[in-house]
Amino acid sequence: MAVGVKAMPPLGAIAGVRLGTVAAGIRKAARQDLVVIQCDSGTTAAAVFTQSHFAAAPVIVAKAHWRQSEPRALIINTGYANAATGEPGLADARACCQALAQVLSCRPDEVLPFSTGVIGERLPVSAVIAGIPPAVGTASEDGWMDAAHGIMTTDTVPKGATCEMVMDGKPVRITGIAKGSGMIHPNMATMLAFVATDIGSERPVLQAALARAVKTTFNAISVDGDTSTNDALVVLATGRSGVRLTAAEGPAFTQFCEALEQVCAELAQAIVRDGEGATKFVRVEISGARSDDQARIVADTVATSPLVKTALFASDPNWGRILMAVGRAPIALDDPDRVTVSLNGVRVFRHGMVDPDYREEAGQKALAAADITVGVDLGQGHGRAVVHTCDFSYDYVRINGSYRT
Amino acid sequence: MAVGVKAMPPLGAIAGVRLGTVAAGIRKAARQDLVVIQCDSGTTAAAVFTQSHFAAAPVIVAKAHWRQSEPRALIINTGYANAATGEPGLADARACCQALAQVLSCRPDEVLPFSTGVIGERLPVSAVIAGIPPAVGTASEDGWMDAAHGIMTTDTVPKGATCEMVMDGKPVRITGIAKGSGMIHPNMATMLAFVATDIGSERPVLQAALARAVKTTFNAISVDGDTSTNDALVVLATGRSGVRLTAAEGPAFTQFCEALEQVCAELAQAIVRDGEGATKFVRVEISGARSDDQARIVADTVATSPLVKTALFASDPNWGRILMAVGRAPIALDDPDRVTVSLNGVRVFRHGMVDPDYREEAGQKALAAADITVGVDLGQGHGRAVVHTCDFSYDYVRINGSYRT
Repeated sequence: MAVGVKAMPPLGAIAGVRLGTVAAGIRKAARQDLVVIQCDSGTTAAAVFTQSHFAAAPVIVAKAHWRQSEPRALIINTGYANAATGEPGLADARACCQALAQVLSCRPDEVLPFSTGVIGERLPVSAVIAGIPPAVGTASEDGWMDAAHGIMTTDTVPKGATCEMVMDGKPVRITGIAKGSGMIHPNMATMLAFVATDIGSERPVLQAALARAVKTTFNAISVDGDTSTNDALVVLATGRSGVRLTAAEGPAFTQFCEALEQVCAELAQAIVRDGEGATKFVRVEISGARSDDQARIVADTVATSPLVKTALFASDPNWGRILMAVGRAPIALDDPDRVTVSLNGVRVFRHGMVDPDYREEAGQKALAAADITVGVDLGQGHGRAVVHTCDFSYDYVRINGSYRT
Repeated sequence: MAVGVKAMPPLGAIAGVRLGTVAAGIRKAARQDLVVIQCDSGTTAAAVFTQSHFAAAPVIVAKAHWRQSEPRALIINTGYANAATGEPGLADARACCQALAQVLSCRPDEVLPFSTGVIGERLPVSAVIAGIPPAVGTASEDGWMDAAHGIMTTDTVPKGATCEMVMDGKPVRITGIAKGSGMIHPNMATMLAFVATDIGSERPVLQAALARAVKTTFNAISVDGDTSTNDALVVLATGRSGVRLTAAEGPAFTQFCEALEQVCAELAQAIVRDGEGATKFVRVEISGARSDDQARIVADTVATSPLVKTALFASDPNWGRILMAVGRAPIALDDPDRVTVSLNGVRVFRHGMVDPDYREEAGQKALAAADITVGVDLGQGHGRAVVHTCDFSYDYVRINGSYRT
């Protein structure tokens, strides 16, 4: 199930980036489960990773390699997360890097590994290694669509986004893919997302752009409030457009940031629309807070409330539950009577009680939509935040009550 | 549905406390929905209330009255929470107090009002007022069982507990009732609970005992992580046993605290066992933390994780999700490799990976039980915390996806 998903747009190739996808039989037969992304020498990479105390082995290895070198390749498997696998798991992740490095004639620390799937079980390294030559063999600049399929797990649709613009009179492009559906409440990045651009950039400038884009996109979505052990997001910048970012400020940087944010927003929202069991796509918009941070705390509280999410599933304009959630948010709220609540623009609550103009029919009509905006104005400042989430349905319980069986 | 609920024990009468319960037709016909609890002059009361920013009108009025006076009566209705009802809601709550005060010939501020039910709709005050004379007329010291039924909403079983002890050579008794099933993650007290004892006590001493008891009982349970607008817990001390607490310390105080804690623990755990849709009763036990507070943060994170709770519903020993939840807990964790995880005493994780002695069959056997202890040792200190919760089932979604219809 996925809410209001548009067909994935054609994903524009990025000069200098080649993607190969194969069915390596890692956990299930005949499933595209191994992706190799190669990039030209001279490519720089920005990256963000999960902040979980139990970061998976590939996250630990990818982070270390990325700190040492600019990458020449990424290797991504589904089926097993290679998380909670201790020292043997780290050795497994390193073995995958080594095998790919050998095929590509680069150093192992120029390879970044990524895994997603079941936690706590060993990665079948031999299957991964056997899959590397065919993956490299089929790699092409047109491989984005296959790669978007190749990184899926409980996702029901592939997720990709492309953005084109003109900078310095030259065309510049950003393309990205992502996967994720459950265990989504990123605290740095979500699950796995890979973005590439043909702009050129020193790593610190690229990293600054990524940090800015992530804050309002991947770090502002929630399916179930649970943060993965394997979250990672990488941006590769090949420089092949001939355009270069020279500083983390100024109009060119801003233009690039906005484009990157747009691609990240599309990918992040696609993850929410494909949230496990989702039947509603919900924009929680908090305004009138003392600060953006305060608004964000309230937005997270509303977006993770099981009672709010089950009411949304039922298309029930049960605004009392939204109020309940705001009521338990750990912030200072000077005057609850100044709080207003609206559902898709229909104001339901103001001055401490139901809006006298509110009619239940209007609320029901608002909630019947698949895309819903829950608006809360706290009436105590100018802080704002938006978090995207989905509802909580029977299917969320079904999917997660039978994941391993 | 309720997990492993024993039949409610006979509830011992408390000399000086009389309870009357009637069907006042507040929201549904022929449903016991109004309870009046009267207590003798000289009774002292301790109380804790929700910390929600949107405390319901009866909570605001009860708090104000309680601060001014020792109560002579409590009036409790189900059907409507009288929350998010603004000034009119406050007037409604006061009108109920006034009507009962008139019947009992006491002051309105000697009456404490409590409501539970739908948020955002006005309380039908005339129905409440009409129900007062018959409720007072039937009030008796043996009315506890009827009152336990009279305060139920989505509860499937009534909840009560009794404890008897000997102090100064005299018998002393504590009896309490509670209601609550959803919107349960108390931050002071849960939903509604009323406890009485025939011990005598100044209010500050009684309040100290209550604060101590609440911390490990009502404030350490969670059904869905959502905190009610109407939570309230009152302890009445009539003094009719002839035994008096004279100080908030010493052996007599400790003895009373332990008994009060036992009654509160039974009531709070009965709420979790009757959690909406619950099929498992789960004890989340965190040890080895730097402090009890740190342990509590981790316990709350595990106890409110949808992925952990759906795995428990599926009886799936998916310990990776427990680790994921610990991994996202907002604490400093020095060495993840020192963390161990066990399921009903079966150790599943240690030294950063699955315990080599662990067998999936043992985990499945542990999870097949209705009562499950999730044990996590953080390996960095002596802090401990226990939170009781339940699983997340289809029925939670069903109950909360159709509550108002």
